[in-house]
Amino acid sequence: MSRAHKGLPGNMDKTEKIHANAPAEIGMALKDVDTPALVIDLDAFERNLARMADAIADKPVRLRAHAKTHKSPTITMRQMALGAVGACCQKVSEAEVLVRGGVPDVLVSNEVIGPGKLARLAALADQAEWIGLCIDSELGLEQAAEAAADAEVVLNALVEIDVGAGRCGVPPGRPALQLARKIADHPNLRFCGLQAYHGSAQHIRDHGERKAEIDKTIAATRETVELLQKNGLACDIVGGAGTGTFEMEADSGVFTELQAGSYIFMDADYARNRKADGGPFDTFEHALFVLTTVMSRPEPDKAVVDAGHKTASVDSGMPQPFSMSGVNYQKPSDEHGVLTIEGSNKPPELGDKLLLVPGHCDPTVNLHDWYVCVRGLHGENPKVEDLWPVAARGSHF
Amino acid sequence: MSRAHKGLPGNMDKTEKIHANAPAEIGMALKDVDTPALVIDLDAFERNLARMADAIADKPVRLRAHAKTHKSPTITMRQMALGAVGACCQKVSEAEVLVRGGVPDVLVSNEVIGPGKLARLAALADQAEWIGLCIDSELGLEQAAEAAADAEVVLNALVEIDVGAGRCGVPPGRPALQLARKIADHPNLRFCGLQAYHGSAQHIRDHGERKAEIDKTIAATRETVELLQKNGLACDIVGGAGTGTFEMEADSGVFTELQAGSYIFMDADYARNRKADGGPFDTFEHALFVLTTVMSRPEPDKAVVDAGHKTASVDSGMPQPFSMSGVNYQKPSDEHGVLTIEGSNKPPELGDKLLLVPGHCDPTVNLHDWYVCVRGLHGENPKVEDLWPVAARGSHF
Repeated sequence: MSRAHKGLPGNMDKTEKIHANAPAEIGMALKDVDTPALVIDLDAFERNLARMADAIADKPVRLRAHAKTHKSPTITMRQMALGAVGACCQKVSEAEVLVRGGVPDVLVSNEVIGPGKLARLAALADQAEWIGLCIDSELGLEQAAEAAADAEVVLNALVEIDVGAGRCGVPPGRPALQLARKIADHPNLRFCGLQAYHGSAQHIRDHGERKAEIDKTIAATRETVELLQKNGLACDIVGGAGTGTFEMEADSGVFTELQAGSYIFMDADYARNRKADGGPFDTFEHALFVLTTVMSRPEPDKAVVDAGHKTASVDSGMPQPFSMSGVNYQKPSDEHGVLTIEGSNKPPELGDKLLLVPGHCDPTVNLHDWYVCVRGLHGENPKVEDLWPVAARGSHF
Repeated sequence: MSRAHKGLPGNMDKTEKIHANAPAEIGMALKDVDTPALVIDLDAFERNLARMADAIADKPVRLRAHAKTHKSPTITMRQMALGAVGACCQKVSEAEVLVRGGVPDVLVSNEVIGPGKLARLAALADQAEWIGLCIDSELGLEQAAEAAADAEVVLNALVEIDVGAGRCGVPPGRPALQLARKIADHPNLRFCGLQAYHGSAQHIRDHGERKAEIDKTIAATRETVELLQKNGLACDIVGGAGTGTFEMEADSGVFTELQAGSYIFMDADYARNRKADGGPFDTFEHALFVLTTVMSRPEPDKAVVDAGHKTASVDSGMPQPFSMSGVNYQKPSDEHGVLTIEGSNKPPELGDKLLLVPGHCDPTVNLHDWYVCVRGLHGENPKVEDLWPVAARGSHF
């Protein structure tokens, strides 16, 4: 038994404190990891990082990998070691964790509203090399400018344009120009360019349909960049793209920064996308799993596992048993999932541990405190090589 | 700005450390609470606790309130102050947090499989007055017995029977008797009764249909209790029931312990249930909210708020704007929700803070680190009276 599991502060030495409440210890065999646990296949993860770096090595774009996926400065630093310029994230509290973890360059790829949040963001500008945010309203602009002035810093700002997602952002074209001018005019803000992310296009299954949608995104973005340029406003950053479309924005000649995040882990939802040749989107490998134990075996064709809503999100479909034909995960409740077994050669038995591929990696990661990093996950002797905290888990504000 | 928000360990005194990463400070006005935040309406919460205590005061049942809902020993102690006999929970790591927080009597209302988990549970038996678990298999029995023997303790055990939920549990009747006998025969296990929870019945909307389902649950449970009794096995605990059906089990004459949890908070999903008279299930009030800020206002009929999948679960339907007619929460993404506005008299404006009723309280609570406890939430001067940690958040194993 892990001493960390005894959970009593009096029994802990420093190492145990650091790993408090982790479901594993470094050096442990995978079979001894407690469940449910969030597991990284380090080999696949490292291949995914390298594949993204290679894929854009010859393109006129930088990678600003999205930390909303992993919430870990440890992972951002690995992405930067392979060429990423920094991180983006969605919340000021995520930016705080990234900067504290040593990330020098952080864009909050989101609007920040509220003097308290903006004061915290402005404070970060003194601690990091580059801190930016997105703006899509006069109020957002005024509040950011005031916070930056109060802190005697300059905040970098992108104008977010709505390029099809129908969420935040001003319309492309003149509304973006108007806002960009006002940003450029303020001494405590630096206009840096555009945020042009089309989130809902990422998961369009058919490659042609996905490309048609992103072609419109690229056209609207190009038009806006050119309009700003004619008016003396250069866009150093034109940011957007996700794992589902990054090659399109990379080839656009307009986008300068890619904000893909999920490529490092590759969830079950992204695996449903298709490539241009109609084949499955297999550029990246599944590198994130929820390790779970069969805790009840009430019927021959039914197994209950110890992973439910609280350990694997279902907003983009069910988690899927990895490499187990005939076994499906269904009917999750808060702490349980039911596996139905149809014609499996090797049905999971009581006490067996198995791997689930999360339906959606970002909200699944956000449920866990620790990444259990395993070397040789699918080999004969998988071992826990490291434990990384999900450092910005719960950093919502 | 909250000093805690500066987030730098060097700046923290002890109080700030305790409240690190909390979106509020004690004494703060609600309007100054950062968002998204998990808010308890203390007045409604206390009324809900009292209503449950009153509702079962004259019934031959005890309340063993479910801590899976709130994950907080602070809340369990309040439930016990009003008569609850203790807590139930779903995970050993939750039981550890409850015992460490002073709860003397904890049932893991779930199967526990795995020597590591069971060793931890057995260790708790030395620290608390009463520790129990559920068993539905020979393997579960053997592992629990071995862990208890190793720790030189006696673990209390219930046999779980499947009373309609189709999840864990042996069938009612003879299979339960067989398992109960084996438990009773083992010197390190104490047979205490039956776990007979029908989870999926809780949310059947129509009262008559719900009752018909629970009538079957009660009949199967009674038959099993009587069979065990004939065979010399007394059931001190016959546990089950949730917020949707507790009155039925309370009146059954068979159940001795109710495991309701959600009644303290009352989510949007439970509010869709109907009472016997066809009216809405309003025995309990909404006492849990996600406080969120309008962070973008891209169109007259659309507002984007800063609460998405990572702050409010959607497995049982969308969170709902509280007391705002014509305003609907839709299209959540990880960090955003889109409000559509149709004919509202007072549409939410940029920067406004508003309350969402969670679709499902348990997995929503599990996303947050802190309860922001507000007195007079719907009055003129709502104030943060306390901050309670969601102490067992992330206690999955």
